[in-house]
Amino acid sequence: MSAIIPRMDLSELGEFGLIDLIHTITERLKDPEHPSWQRLLIGIGDDTAAWQSNGQTQLATTDTLVQNVHFDLKDITWEELGWKALAINLSDIAAMGGIPQYALVSLALPGALEVENICEFYDGMARLANEFGVAIVGGNIAVAPNVVITVALLGSARNEKMLRRSSATPGEQIAVTGYLGLSAACLMMLKERTSLDAETIKILRQGHFRPVPRVREGQVLVDQGIKTAIDISDGLIADLGHICEASEVSAEVRIEQVPIHPLVKANFQNYQQLALGGGEDYELLFTANKADIERVRQTIHYPITIIGNITQEGLPDRVTLLDAKGNITGYEKGGWEHFKDGAVEA
Amino acid sequence: MSAIIPRMDLSELGEFGLIDLIHTITERLKDPEHPSWQRLLIGIGDDTAAWQSNGQTQLATTDTLVQNVHFDLKDITWEELGWKALAINLSDIAAMGGIPQYALVSLALPGALEVENICEFYDGMARLANEFGVAIVGGNIAVAPNVVITVALLGSARNEKMLRRSSATPGEQIAVTGYLGLSAACLMMLKERTSLDAETIKILRQGHFRPVPRVREGQVLVDQGIKTAIDISDGLIADLGHICEASEVSAEVRIEQVPIHPLVKANFQNYQQLALGGGEDYELLFTANKADIERVRQTIHYPITIIGNITQEGLPDRVTLLDAKGNITGYEKGGWEHFKDGAVEA
Repeated sequence: MSAIIPRMDLSELGEFGLIDLIHTITERLKDPEHPSWQRLLIGIGDDTAAWQSNGQTQLATTDTLVQNVHFDLKDITWEELGWKALAINLSDIAAMGGIPQYALVSLALPGALEVENICEFYDGMARLANEFGVAIVGGNIAVAPNVVITVALLGSARNEKMLRRSSATPGEQIAVTGYLGLSAACLMMLKERTSLDAETIKILRQGHFRPVPRVREGQVLVDQGIKTAIDISDGLIADLGHICEASEVSAEVRIEQVPIHPLVKANFQNYQQLALGGGEDYELLFTANKADIERVRQTIHYPITIIGNITQEGLPDRVTLLDAKGNITGYEKGGWEHFKDGAVEA
Repeated sequence: MSAIIPRMDLSELGEFGLIDLIHTITERLKDPEHPSWQRLLIGIGDDTAAWQSNGQTQLATTDTLVQNVHFDLKDITWEELGWKALAINLSDIAAMGGIPQYALVSLALPGALEVENICEFYDGMARLANEFGVAIVGGNIAVAPNVVITVALLGSARNEKMLRRSSATPGEQIAVTGYLGLSAACLMMLKERTSLDAETIKILRQGHFRPVPRVREGQVLVDQGIKTAIDISDGLIADLGHICEASEVSAEVRIEQVPIHPLVKANFQNYQQLALGGGEDYELLFTANKADIERVRQTIHYPITIIGNITQEGLPDRVTLLDAKGNITGYEKGGWEHFKDGAVEA
């Protein structure tokens, strides 16, 4: 195997390079004769895995929060941590238009932690679980030097239909739910100790520490015949890039149309960077024709904004940004990529 | 909530206390009206969770390996780490008599790691996955100061039947598959730098770093009508204690009958402690009447040893050890309990 593996460390390869590599390895090593592989509909490379099971489509996803990488215990409460650890997984099920059902929770924890913190953690998680009908049914606990939380979330597809990353086609519009930028703005506020009024702080914190996964909106998308979606976790442009890569298409985004949250626009000079590249908004980004998007808009009772369109295949620059006059422009990249971005302190 | 929570840290509460607490909290916080809860067959407190889904029983489990807690990269190869991370989850499915199907793999990794290590990791995991028909279909990667590996494994029950911890009844015999002590003996050898011949070292290392989960044996148990089993991960006596607690029974173990691996007996003075308390053998411990055990023995082509019996309910000391003459005896406790046992270095 080593013959094909370049000698480098993970920080050189980067998060997305590593995901591609793992995809390649597991594809090459698999035994396709096994029933599990034969019933598999979606493996590595979409928001969740999916397989056929007794006439139903099962969905499964997992996501991890690492202390001092994804959160700082100085900023986040344990109740928020419980909420967010489940929310980021729910968002993956939402991006498939699926129905979330069962969660397993793995906690790696230092022994010096207060027992009460764990109660608050489950309190926050159970609140969100109940909101979306999820049962917390198992998990694992282990001692560790720093907190690592991994949730695995199982669910099922709605009427066997799923939103994919790989089905965008040229001519479709690109749309996004809600408003962007709150989560990244909150991080910036905490880092720069920006002084803001109490109500603004509350809304920014809510956006970053207690995101609401768009589970119901994802289900409406599937019901209305939409085929393509992703949740915005890495950042609008990065996640649109994932759609372009999986669908082998390109995209144009009209920056002026991106629904930046008014509080971000009012309080942060780099609001465009926060909304386009910040990530962790957990809104849904989807593509469809105009009539379908209009039908979704009338059903959903939640903001839907068209921000651009899918263009013909094969353009070298997959996501092109256009200013108000239609000229090609750029923005300072901000999306987070594991391994490549920044060092981690133990 | 805080009114009922004692003010203490996790090292005082201990692993099993924390599991009980999480069980209590999630039970109290759940919304039992949701379909997910109504279809749930087994929640926290057995080897896997289980629920009804379209006329099938689904199983799900998750287990974590933390660097410098569960493994030391000076001792284990990346290929062994991949094998073991899946094996410990397969062992939980085995303990239910289930069919393993789909795995999600979450890796928290330092950026300085060689890419080749990750290839070796998946090589080891895929080898075991193919052995038991498991498809590796997704996961997550994140940067972290130390390696944390969490696998979530999904499967299904065999003909709707499952091995439980809670169904042991007085009068039944207690039996165990295979031989015990290799895993703990390997750890001791590494710690004390015990000098042993190459073949012995190889077998000890195999026992600890490349355990074979008893998936097929678990399926035979279910097929032969056995109702009660657990896998030996915490240690024979500790895991028998889990059965006694869940079933509200007591147990007697005749120490002389415990199948201690001959290489452990030959090379370690504390062989009894290693086999009774060491843990991580990943053999199956089960209870049944003598005729059923005899039928299993004739089907299974793998050692099955009767080591004691389930006694009447309500004895204060749940697991009693008897020496060759039938007198009550003891042994130095060795089973690992997270948080209570030892500190962790970052």
